Amino acid sequence: MVILDRKSAICVLGTGLIGGSVLRAAVRAGYEAWGYNRSAAGARAARSDGFDVSDDIEAVLGRAAAADALIVIGVPMPAIDPMLSEVKLRAPHCDLTDVVSVKAPVAAAVHHHELGARYVGGHPMAGTTESGWAASGPDLFQGAAWAVGVDPGTHAQAWTRVARLALDCGAYVVPVAAAEHDRAVARISHLPHVLAETLAVAGAGGGDLALGLAAGSFRDGTRVAATAAELVRAICEPNEAALLEALDDALRLLGAARDSLAAQGVLGELIDAGYSQRARYDTLQRWEITDIRPGDQDWLERLREAGQRGGVVRTLD
Amino acid sequence: MVILDRKSAICVLGTGLIGGSVLRAAVRAGYEAWGYNRSAAGARAARSDGFDVSDDIEAVLGRAAAADALIVIGVPMPAIDPMLSEVKLRAPHCDLTDVVSVKAPVAAAVHHHELGARYVGGHPMAGTTESGWAASGPDLFQGAAWAVGVDPGTHAQAWTRVARLALDCGAYVVPVAAAEHDRAVARISHLPHVLAETLAVAGAGGGDLALGLAAGSFRDGTRVAATAAELVRAICEPNEAALLEALDDALRLLGAARDSLAAQGVLGELIDAGYSQRARYDTLQRWEITDIRPGDQDWLERLREAGQRGGVVRTLD
Repeated sequence: MVILDRKSAICVLGTGLIGGSVLRAAVRAGYEAWGYNRSAAGARAARSDGFDVSDDIEAVLGRAAAADALIVIGVPMPAIDPMLSEVKLRAPHCDLTDVVSVKAPVAAAVHHHELGARYVGGHPMAGTTESGWAASGPDLFQGAAWAVGVDPGTHAQAWTRVARLALDCGAYVVPVAAAEHDRAVARISHLPHVLAETLAVAGAGGGDLALGLAAGSFRDGTRVAATAAELVRAICEPNEAALLEALDDALRLLGAARDSLAAQGVLGELIDAGYSQRARYDTLQRWEITDIRPGDQDWLERLREAGQRGGVVRTLD
Repeated sequence: MVILDRKSAICVLGTGLIGGSVLRAAVRAGYEAWGYNRSAAGARAARSDGFDVSDDIEAVLGRAAAADALIVIGVPMPAIDPMLSEVKLRAPHCDLTDVVSVKAPVAAAVHHHELGARYVGGHPMAGTTESGWAASGPDLFQGAAWAVGVDPGTHAQAWTRVARLALDCGAYVVPVAAAEHDRAVARISHLPHVLAETLAVAGAGGGDLALGLAAGSFRDGTRVAATAAELVRAICEPNEAALLEALDDALRLLGAARDSLAAQGVLGELIDAGYSQRARYDTLQRWEITDIRPGDQDWLERLREAGQRGGVVRTLD
């Protein structure tokens, strides 16, 4: 077991909805934490709220290197590569994590920049349809799942540091390997986005009369379609292979219901199956992993296997 | 303009979620109102809450005939036909409406039973995933749209009575012809149900790991899949033709996004279109119809045309 300071320094690169919320939650939890925003106006907005955010990447990362901070990358996938170039140049030995919605493409970029030794992928499962610093808040991760990577070679101290940050932000940790994470979120995050967009367009095809009659089922079913289109693309498109599998499943299910309705006037198996799978989600039991300590024999493989079975980490002490 | 008592008697047949909520709201609004439930236990539950509900259809409809009540049919589509037989037998001259989720099939059944003279279709656009009397409440229709039929031949006094009940329950009235109603709700109510079932099944295909990572987008996107399967079928399947059109639209949109992702790695036009149509829904303006009085020249056609353009009725005085 690795011993380390409970509240080591945190450097957040990108202070939008997720990164900004990490910064706020970390500061509230007692961390020394500061951040970078690429726009001077964005940095100013955070500073006027009392947070130490600058648009000077050199200074921000210089401080991270000097303080041996945990660097948290909070920019969307398309901005990852230039950000990693800066990290490699200015703070190559820091522990490194991210809060991006896909894990395998980020890990590939991290390894491309030879920053893999201290990298641990992360993904807090929380958000709103709003974006930017103004939408961020310190409570965003309360009671949320936070995926933390357990791919082979993960450094135990870096892992512990990332997991501790997640717990101190109010989340619980779901240990998961990058490829498995990406397949999972394709189904429970990226597919919901694409279906919400589909419903918004197909619903509006009924004109103002249809939209004027719309109630809860349409409102909730299209809620995430209010997310900025650029952000939806940045979230979903990098997960192409896994999302294609999920889309093909959805198309098959929907097509079968359509064909059954056309042929026999009934929607078929889909309705019962949907009801029981929603009930499964509603009653899903999460159990606490208490017997695996980072650095123990086979800890990564054991955490990964526990995570697959619904295990979560709620404390590191 | 027809003059009638503001609060004439109301007889609700079927005191589940919607019918029960109509009964509660009508009583609270000062109507003399009573109801029928096919099960003795269901009737007893309503009586123990202080409402006049019986499982004796003969007595309930006899009272309706004697009091010249407005009869509100609140049973699902599969139970409509036997209920209309009872109405035809025991109270054939009463004004008649319903709260069923499709309108053309109900209208056809009503005409088949020769009860069309005083029939006005209705559909309050509100609900929960719960069902039955226990889930009903007098506030369910507050601020909701309530579709009221304006098909040719509709009787002005019956229409006014149904519209007044809707307003007194806290809703506003959307005047709409049966076939147009059914095409609209296929897109904003029935399609959302089928997509929610699809998402529940495709999401759960990722196993407990995926369900354990699921957050708001999956939770909201599958919410209505928690509705009892039998009820979902009763709501959607009678609207076969219109639902098929909506499903084909959804399949086409989803298939195009899938193919674009496979070929070019991008989801294509769907994301921008979904964002702008959700924004259209969020900013939809409803305007108040004030210059058309039931019984006026061409009132049905004028109300229908106004409803198509987003007009609603908020008062009858």
